[in-house]
Amino acid sequence: MSTVDRQLEELQDEIVSEIPPDISVTDVKYEGPELVVYTRDPKRFAQDGDLVRRLASKLRKRITVRPDPDVLSPPQRAREKVMDVIPDDAGVTNLDFHEDTGEVVIEAEKPGMVIGRHGSTLREITREAGWTPEVVRTPPIESSTVSNVRNFLKQERDERRDILEKVGRQIHREEMQDDEYVRITTLGCCREVGRASFILSTPETRILVDCGDKPGSDDEVPYLQVQEALAGGANTIDAVVLTHAHLDHSAFIPLLFKYGYDGPIYCTEPTRDLMGLLTLDYLDVAAKEGRTPPYDSEMVREAIKHCIPLEYGDVTDIAPDVKLTFHNAGHILGSAVSHFHIGDGLYNVAFSGDIHYDDTRLFNGAVNDFPRVETLVMESTYGGRNDYQTDQEDSERRLKEIINETYEDGGKVLIPAFAVGRSQELMLVLEEAMREGDIPEMPIHLDGMIWEATAIHTTYPEYLRDDLRDRIFHSDSNPFLAPQFNHIDGGEEERQEVADDDQCIILSTSGMVSGGPIMSWLEHIAPDPDSTMTFVGYQAQGTLGRRIQSGRDEIPMPDSRDGGRTERLKMNMDVETVDGFSGHADRQGLEDFVRTMNPRPEKVLCVHGDESSTQDLSSALYHEFNMRTFAPKNLETFRFI
Amino acid sequence: MSTVDRQLEELQDEIVSEIPPDISVTDVKYEGPELVVYTRDPKRFAQDGDLVRRLASKLRKRITVRPDPDVLSPPQRAREKVMDVIPDDAGVTNLDFHEDTGEVVIEAEKPGMVIGRHGSTLREITREAGWTPEVVRTPPIESSTVSNVRNFLKQERDERRDILEKVGRQIHREEMQDDEYVRITTLGCCREVGRASFILSTPETRILVDCGDKPGSDDEVPYLQVQEALAGGANTIDAVVLTHAHLDHSAFIPLLFKYGYDGPIYCTEPTRDLMGLLTLDYLDVAAKEGRTPPYDSEMVREAIKHCIPLEYGDVTDIAPDVKLTFHNAGHILGSAVSHFHIGDGLYNVAFSGDIHYDDTRLFNGAVNDFPRVETLVMESTYGGRNDYQTDQEDSERRLKEIINETYEDGGKVLIPAFAVGRSQELMLVLEEAMREGDIPEMPIHLDGMIWEATAIHTTYPEYLRDDLRDRIFHSDSNPFLAPQFNHIDGGEEERQEVADDDQCIILSTSGMVSGGPIMSWLEHIAPDPDSTMTFVGYQAQGTLGRRIQSGRDEIPMPDSRDGGRTERLKMNMDVETVDGFSGHADRQGLEDFVRTMNPRPEKVLCVHGDESSTQDLSSALYHEFNMRTFAPKNLETFRFI
Repeated sequence: MSTVDRQLEELQDEIVSEIPPDISVTDVKYEGPELVVYTRDPKRFAQDGDLVRRLASKLRKRITVRPDPDVLSPPQRAREKVMDVIPDDAGVTNLDFHEDTGEVVIEAEKPGMVIGRHGSTLREITREAGWTPEVVRTPPIESSTVSNVRNFLKQERDERRDILEKVGRQIHREEMQDDEYVRITTLGCCREVGRASFILSTPETRILVDCGDKPGSDDEVPYLQVQEALAGGANTIDAVVLTHAHLDHSAFIPLLFKYGYDGPIYCTEPTRDLMGLLTLDYLDVAAKEGRTPPYDSEMVREAIKHCIPLEYGDVTDIAPDVKLTFHNAGHILGSAVSHFHIGDGLYNVAFSGDIHYDDTRLFNGAVNDFPRVETLVMESTYGGRNDYQTDQEDSERRLKEIINETYEDGGKVLIPAFAVGRSQELMLVLEEAMREGDIPEMPIHLDGMIWEATAIHTTYPEYLRDDLRDRIFHSDSNPFLAPQFNHIDGGEEERQEVADDDQCIILSTSGMVSGGPIMSWLEHIAPDPDSTMTFVGYQAQGTLGRRIQSGRDEIPMPDSRDGGRTERLKMNMDVETVDGFSGHADRQGLEDFVRTMNPRPEKVLCVHGDESSTQDLSSALYHEFNMRTFAPKNLETFRFI
Repeated sequence: MSTVDRQLEELQDEIVSEIPPDISVTDVKYEGPELVVYTRDPKRFAQDGDLVRRLASKLRKRITVRPDPDVLSPPQRAREKVMDVIPDDAGVTNLDFHEDTGEVVIEAEKPGMVIGRHGSTLREITREAGWTPEVVRTPPIESSTVSNVRNFLKQERDERRDILEKVGRQIHREEMQDDEYVRITTLGCCREVGRASFILSTPETRILVDCGDKPGSDDEVPYLQVQEALAGGANTIDAVVLTHAHLDHSAFIPLLFKYGYDGPIYCTEPTRDLMGLLTLDYLDVAAKEGRTPPYDSEMVREAIKHCIPLEYGDVTDIAPDVKLTFHNAGHILGSAVSHFHIGDGLYNVAFSGDIHYDDTRLFNGAVNDFPRVETLVMESTYGGRNDYQTDQEDSERRLKEIINETYEDGGKVLIPAFAVGRSQELMLVLEEAMREGDIPEMPIHLDGMIWEATAIHTTYPEYLRDDLRDRIFHSDSNPFLAPQFNHIDGGEEERQEVADDDQCIILSTSGMVSGGPIMSWLEHIAPDPDSTMTFVGYQAQGTLGRRIQSGRDEIPMPDSRDGGRTERLKMNMDVETVDGFSGHADRQGLEDFVRTMNPRPEKVLCVHGDESSTQDLSSALYHEFNMRTFAPKNLETFRFI
C-alpha cells in the first residue's frame, strides 16, 4: 500500500471518529489540494453547518463532501428540489448534474443568492436534494471565452478528475529528503522586461513561477533548456504558478505541455480565462504575421485543463513542503501576489508579480500584509530613479480636457489601448465623466478584444475594487453596461459608419499600434485635423505607436489590398500623451509597497525592469530600509536557507 | 557526413597543402584533444624537426604523427634500431611495440636522454625505425600504483583509443548555441571544508570541477542529485576536471561512472595515479570499518581509463568553447590551478584548487600569472583573520630540537603524517638535517602508504620544485633514496624489531591517528616516557589525534585480538605539535596570491574554508583590493557574462 493510500485510510478513520456515528463515510480521496469525502448521508452532513468547517480545521485540509453515487436522487427529481430552494431572483440560467460525483453546477446571475448567508442556501440544497452544489456566475456580458472554457472543462470532466486525483496524490506524497534548502533560480525577466520565469526549489519540490514571452523579441524566451529548468524533463517540475495572464508571464505556459509537462497550474479563475484568451490571440497574431508559434491551440486547451483555480486568501498545499496563498496584486483582473510558505515554518517567499500599490478605479491596491515573509521577489518596471508618474487624478483631468477640446472641434478621440486592464480602467473614467457631465455624452466604441476582456471582468466582480464590486452586486448599476459603450462587431462596415458619423471616443487594440483594428481606425481618422490620437500607455521602442508619439507626420501603412506594398499615411490629427494610467506601481508605489509591507522582508530581489531600473530600486531599498537587496541576472541561483 | 568528419577532411586537405608534396597523409583523426596524422612517410616527417610544430601552430591543434600500419617495420627489427639510437646511459628498462598505432612506448630511467635536445633523439628514432616513440620514466623507487596503472592502460588500450576518439569528436563538435553565458554552480565546499565540487557552464558545455568527499561526515556528499548537476543524467556533463588527488576533491569521481558518465577526466599524470591510490585506499578503509562505499574498485578502473593527462602549461581544447590550462598549485604532487578560457576571448575563470603560495621544499609556489582572468575561485582553508602560520624555517628548527632532545633521552620520535605531500616534505627536512649534522644519523622508518606515495613522487620529478628536480635529474642525489629511509614492509614483526631497537624516527599514517599502522606504533611506543609523539598536521575535531594532542593521558585502543572490546592505553610519551608544514597557503599566502596575481581578477569567490574563514577572506580581499568578492553558499549559481 502506498503511503498516500495509508494516509487516506488514516484520514478516513479520523473523520469517522470525529463525526456522529450515524453518518457514514464511504470513501476519501484527494482531488488536487482538496480532500473529498464521500458519504451515504449527505443530508446529515448538510444539517450541521459547522461540521465540515470543524473537520477542515482539525485535519488542516480543504474538505469537500459529496454524496455516494448510490444514494443520488435522479437529476430530474433533484432539479425540482434545487429550484424550489433557490430564490427566483437569483436568476438561475443553467443546472448541470454530474452523476459521477454527485455535483450540481448552478449557473446564476446572482451567485450570492444561491449561496445564502454563510452558505445556508447551499446547505439547504444538499439537505433537500442530496446533491453537492457548486455555483458559477452567468456572465452579465456574454463572454465567448468564459463559455468556451466552461464547456470545455465540462466536456473534459473525466480526464480532469483523473488529473486532479493524480495531482492530489503528488501533493500529499511523503517527503523524501532530509536536507533543507530554499532556492530561487532566475530564468527570465532579470534586468529586462519580459519573459518572466523563476524556479523556486527545495530538496523536495520544484515550482515554476510564470513562463512568459518577451514582447518585441521573438527569440528571447525564458531559459527553459538549461539543466536546472526542464533539461531533465518537464516533469521534474512539480507545479506551475501563474501570477497573472499577461503574455510576458503566460505565453509559454502551453509550451510546457508540448514538452511533456502534465502537472497543475495554479492561478486565479480570471487568470485562467484571460490566459486562454491571450494565448489563443498570441497564436492568431503569429499566424497572421506568418510566424510559426512554438505550440498550437491544443496545448492551450491542455493548459486550461490543468489549471487549479485558487481564490485570494486560500492557503493551499501544493507540495508536501509548500503552501501557496494568492493575494490581490492590483495590476490586472486576477493578478496575484504569490506567497509561498515553505517547510512548515522554515522559510517564506513572496513573488509580487506585477503590482499596482495604490487603489485604481478597477482594483484595490496590492496586498502586502503576510503572516511571515523573509524574501520578496519584486517587480521593478518603474523602479528607475526618475520613474514617478503623474497622479491619476491629474491624468484624468487632462484626458477630459483633450476630449472636450476635440469635441468642440467636431473631431473624434482615438485611444490605442491594451485589451486587458487599462481599457476597463478608461471605461470607468469615461462612464463617470459622462455621468457627472464633465464631458459630453457621445458613443464610446470598443474595438478588438476589449469587449471580450470587459465581459470577463464582469464575470468575476469579486476580483474588482470593493466599491465597484458593490455597485455591480447591489445596485444593478454595472458601469460596464452603460449604454454609451458600443461593441464594434460589424467589422469594416461599422467602422466606416462610425468614421462618417459625429464625435465619438474609440478605444481600440493594439495598445502599441502594432496591428489589430487600430490600423483601420488610423486610416479613417489620421487625415482629420480636428481629431486627436491619445496615448495612455507605454509605447515600446521600435513600435509604430512610439513613432507616432514622437511626432512623425507620415507613417507607413501596410496596404491590405496589395500584400507587399506599403502606402504612406498623412498624420493630420493631433497627437497627445497622457500618462498616469499604468497598471504598474511607479517608483513611489514600489517603495511604498516595501515601506508598508508587514512584516518587512530580509531580502529583496529586484526583477522585471530594465538594468538601470532594477539597480536603482535595489540600491534605493538597501539605503532606505537597510535590507539585503539584489538586482539578479538571468540564470542565477540564490540560496536562502 | 557529420560536421566533425567534414572538419577532419578539411584539416587533412590543409595539412597536405602545407607539407612537401612527397609526404603522404593517409588518415587524420581526433584522439582526445589531439589531432593524429597517419602517414606512409613517418621518416620524412621526422627529418624536418620543425614541420610538426609549424603545422600545430598553423592549425592551432596539438598534433601527433604516426606511421600508417602498412609501412611499419616488424617490432623485432625496429627494437634493434631503437636501441641503437638511444644512448646506453638512458637506462631503458622496457620497450612496448603497438602495431595498431605504430607507437613504441619506451620506459627509461632517464627519459631526458631518450628525448634528446629539443626532441632530437625522438626524431632520430622515427627516422631510423619508422615508429613513433613515447617515453615514460622507470620509477626510481618501484611503485605498484604506477606499474598497475600502466599495465592496466596497456591492457585496455583498444577501449581507451575508442574513448579518446569519441572524446575527440565531442570536443570538436560544432557549436550549437548562439546565446552567451558563463556560470558557476557550487555543489560543495562552500562555507565548509570538504566535498569540493563545482559546475562551470556555458550554453554549449558543462564541466564538473572536482567531486570530493567531506572527511568526518559520511552523509554529506556533493549535491550531485540536484537538477543542475546530474539529475538530467551523468552525461549532461561534458568533462570532469580534477585539480588534485586528495579525497576531498576526488573521492566521488569513480561514482560518476557508476551513474553512467563516460566522458573524460582531465588531470595531471601524477593526479591520475594518486587518485587511483587514494580512492582504492578509501574503499579499503570503508571495508575495514564495515561501511559500504557507494562504488567499487571497478569504477576506479573506469575512472583511470577515462583520464586524459595534461601537463602544466598545455593549452588544451576540452570543448568547442573551452580551453583548459593547468598550472602548478604547490599543494601536492600534480596539484593544478585550473584556468578556463571560454568562448574565444569571452571570459576566463581560474579555479585555485588547493594552493601553497610560497615555495616549499617539495614544490614551487602556486602559479598566479595568466594571459587573462576575470573570475578567481579561491580556496580559503586558512582564510580566517588569525590564520597566520609559523614560518617553515622556525617550524623546522623546532622539529629538530624535539628530535635532538628525544634522541638524547634515548627515545623515539613518532610522527603521524598524511601519506601524500606532507610526508615527503618531512623526508626532505629530515634528510637535509642529517646530511648537515643538525640531528644525529638514525633510521627513519616509513609506514603505511608513505613509501608508495614517495615512489610516485620520484616517478614524476618534473612536478617537483626545480632545484629538487635538478638534484634528481642531474646529480643522482635523489634525496628520497637516502639510505636512512626504511620502508616498513615486514608488518608487525618488523615494527616489534624497530620498537625494541635504538632511537629512530617513525613517519606513519594515518595523519589524524584515525586508523592504519600508527595505531600499532602507539601501542609500542605510547608507554615510553622518553619518546615523543609529534603532530605536524591539522587534527580534526573528533579524531583520536585531536584527543591526544589536547593532552589525554589515557586513550582507548580497539583490541585487535578481540574485535568488540576496547582497551585503554596509557600515554606516557611526550606530545608535541609543530605547525607550519601545511600544504595550504595561510592567510598571508592567500592574500599574497591575489595581490601578486597577474592580471588581477574582477571577482573572487572564496570557497573551501569554514564559514568565518571564507567570509573573513572575502571581506579582506574586498577592502584591500576593491574587487567584487563573495563567500558563496552551496547550491548557488553565479552568472558572469
